[in-house]
Amino acid sequence: MSAPSPRTQQALRQRNLSLALRAVAAGGPLSRAAVAARIGMTRAGVAAVVDELLRAGLLVELGPGRPGTVGRPGSALALNDRGPCGLGAEIGVDHLAVCAVDLTGRIRARVAADAANRDRPPAAVLARLTGLVGEVTEELRGEGLTPAGLTVAVPGLIARDESTVVRAPNLGWQGVDLGPLLPSASPARVGNEANLGALAEQRVPAGPGADEADRGERAAEPAGAGHSAGTGPARPGPGRGAAAAGSPGPWRNFLHVSAEIGIGAALVMDGELQRGAHGFAGELGHVPVRPQGRPCACGGRGCLEQYAGEEAVLRASGLDPGRARAAHPGPGARIAMLAARAADGDARVRAALREAGGALGIAIAGTVNVLDPEAVVLGGALAGLAPWVVPAVERELGRRVADPARTVRLAVSALGAEGPLLGAALSVVDAVLEAPGAVAAG
Amino acid sequence: MSAPSPRTQQALRQRNLSLALRAVAAGGPLSRAAVAARIGMTRAGVAAVVDELLRAGLLVELGPGRPGTVGRPGSALALNDRGPCGLGAEIGVDHLAVCAVDLTGRIRARVAADAANRDRPPAAVLARLTGLVGEVTEELRGEGLTPAGLTVAVPGLIARDESTVVRAPNLGWQGVDLGPLLPSASPARVGNEANLGALAEQRVPAGPGADEADRGERAAEPAGAGHSAGTGPARPGPGRGAAAAGSPGPWRNFLHVSAEIGIGAALVMDGELQRGAHGFAGELGHVPVRPQGRPCACGGRGCLEQYAGEEAVLRASGLDPGRARAAHPGPGARIAMLAARAADGDARVRAALREAGGALGIAIAGTVNVLDPEAVVLGGALAGLAPWVVPAVERELGRRVADPARTVRLAVSALGAEGPLLGAALSVVDAVLEAPGAVAAG
Repeated sequence: MSAPSPRTQQALRQRNLSLALRAVAAGGPLSRAAVAARIGMTRAGVAAVVDELLRAGLLVELGPGRPGTVGRPGSALALNDRGPCGLGAEIGVDHLAVCAVDLTGRIRARVAADAANRDRPPAAVLARLTGLVGEVTEELRGEGLTPAGLTVAVPGLIARDESTVVRAPNLGWQGVDLGPLLPSASPARVGNEANLGALAEQRVPAGPGADEADRGERAAEPAGAGHSAGTGPARPGPGRGAAAAGSPGPWRNFLHVSAEIGIGAALVMDGELQRGAHGFAGELGHVPVRPQGRPCACGGRGCLEQYAGEEAVLRASGLDPGRARAAHPGPGARIAMLAARAADGDARVRAALREAGGALGIAIAGTVNVLDPEAVVLGGALAGLAPWVVPAVERELGRRVADPARTVRLAVSALGAEGPLLGAALSVVDAVLEAPGAVAAG
Repeated sequence: MSAPSPRTQQALRQRNLSLALRAVAAGGPLSRAAVAARIGMTRAGVAAVVDELLRAGLLVELGPGRPGTVGRPGSALALNDRGPCGLGAEIGVDHLAVCAVDLTGRIRARVAADAANRDRPPAAVLARLTGLVGEVTEELRGEGLTPAGLTVAVPGLIARDESTVVRAPNLGWQGVDLGPLLPSASPARVGNEANLGALAEQRVPAGPGADEADRGERAAEPAGAGHSAGTGPARPGPGRGAAAAGSPGPWRNFLHVSAEIGIGAALVMDGELQRGAHGFAGELGHVPVRPQGRPCACGGRGCLEQYAGEEAVLRASGLDPGRARAAHPGPGARIAMLAARAADGDARVRAALREAGGALGIAIAGTVNVLDPEAVVLGGALAGLAPWVVPAVERELGRRVADPARTVRLAVSALGAEGPLLGAALSVVDAVLEAPGAVAAG
């Protein structure tokens, strides 16, 4: 019987390049023979593919004598950490950031700046961002790294063209095509910050065995501290480390909740990010939690964001949001300020974070009942405030999750507010691993 | 370069049998040449596969002279409507039903019985159901049809083993393995009723051009009457027919909401039913809509089911649920009774249905914001009560959906309360189309 559909030689070559590159990415240093065994190709076939990946600067040979390598050490292949790299950028309400990660997932450069972006014309914001991208690119060139693309994380609804911001209420942008405003040097696209945060959460880069001192720099190390939810009051429990012990990687079905000024979420089902029919999935901030409650800018009432968004938390803490932003520019600074007050026993801040956690718990419980994920990961600002937010989330989940065994896990991201920026850069690396032919041809 | 993984001859044969059978199922009567073109096989290869499908009784040759057939009419192949068939069964709180559909999706037999199943031992319920399955099987044998399997729809959480009812609160069952209690003649499995309703909604069987008189009997005709939501007050609009005009088939991303005694939902994303990590996805009835509201049997408070489930609607209509069930046994009878009262202008019933619609709208809006589906289909009892429920649902969606264009479509299922039963039977037909080798070998 004949094959169902003809494959061109070109498509097969692309596919084999990607299979071989991803085998090395997933398995650490590997000999050609090990790559051949993992992807089911002949050794002769792998040799040709590997040669092409070496020529393109995507792989390197580690050379003989490397300790801990199995088999003939001279033939061990690794991802090149001086080859193509991914650029990620983040446009926040009051900050901008750009970072670069190499093929192994390691951060190689990072700049950040406070910036009052709310209600500022997109052209002005993007001009400044382009300057920061230039700074990072300059730094990379000194290390022999070449940007393979740029992804910009934006807190808003992004159209399927990966270029148009349909609506970013906290920036005051609506229907803006950022495409013409992005740096033109390498392929650039725009993504939703919560989705990119989830990507960072999901991706645990397996590079050449990093030693302990190296861990702090690695982009997507599994979150160490986790909580298990649902069976009663807050209690510590094994988090992703334990989940990873039972399965070969991080969760394949999870909800990643991320808060900065607004609240977004990303759904990963069967290992795939679900963007929705129009690319607008994950608007957890607009799930009604007090249906007759406070009016929201979206036109609804009682949306989660009105109870657990930054402005709501600042107000409930007795702080003026405008003054708090002026005194503590950058989202990290305000999280640190709130965390410090809560740690000092400030009753209003603690009550505000409890209320935010309760509202989050209601929205998350409803979502868990509809989606049945393995886990819910709290990221962004929520990670930094976890000690005061998580108990209230757990209480609501324990009460409201319909699965009688309450098997869903609640975990706190180790990446915190860095997730979307890292995810943006990692998304470029993922694109290189998926289609290395584009780099190999260039 | 070599193929990435070896395929056994057996797996290839299975795959080709399924490809050819599904090509005929999707394309109506087709010549061998047309099948070959659609699935990218040689004519010789297709001839061998088709012979096997003819021998197994899965395909038939229509013979010469059939009007409307393109090409040599003598060689046109169609699904055999006198071959294997699928059995579906439904266990409701107060009824049982069994039906059979042939390979073309046409209903060939159906029996239903009132039955007080709530809090009754599963063994007793299944004994009665087995009797009904026997009746239907007897009827089919007379027509030359052979059951290829049985799927039983249950209103509850079903474990991944497709055999154990984890929890069916409205039946009073918890942790019951129905496997040993099911009829043993053919492969049998248990499924969630909302998921099976969504399957029926999704599957539009393409058979030999049915004439108008035939439509009422076809299992999954697209819903004619639809509503479009979100831009203001209730107004009629194009439903699935219009959606199908713009795209080749029914929606690939939708939420199917189904109400009987409880309220369930099914998620279809990229054409695939999403069961969740533990098989418990779709518990829309336990989304909080009045977080501090009425206590629910699930342990939560203010769950949707407490405002839009049958018992809540009966009470709000000034009716005693127990007496209403005794006087109008079977869910269809109570829907008809409520619909008749609403049509007669009964203000309490109308207000009760408006309240149910408002609560549904809050839960659906939150879910739409998280999932971003193309459409929401109201099925089960909601279809029969649509004129009084839909306007309130639309009002809430118009107010609360975060997508500024409010592109989500709200439609009413044409299948109504029949969806889960039909979906159960169609799931067996789908299994035959996916793995015809099992039938061909037997």
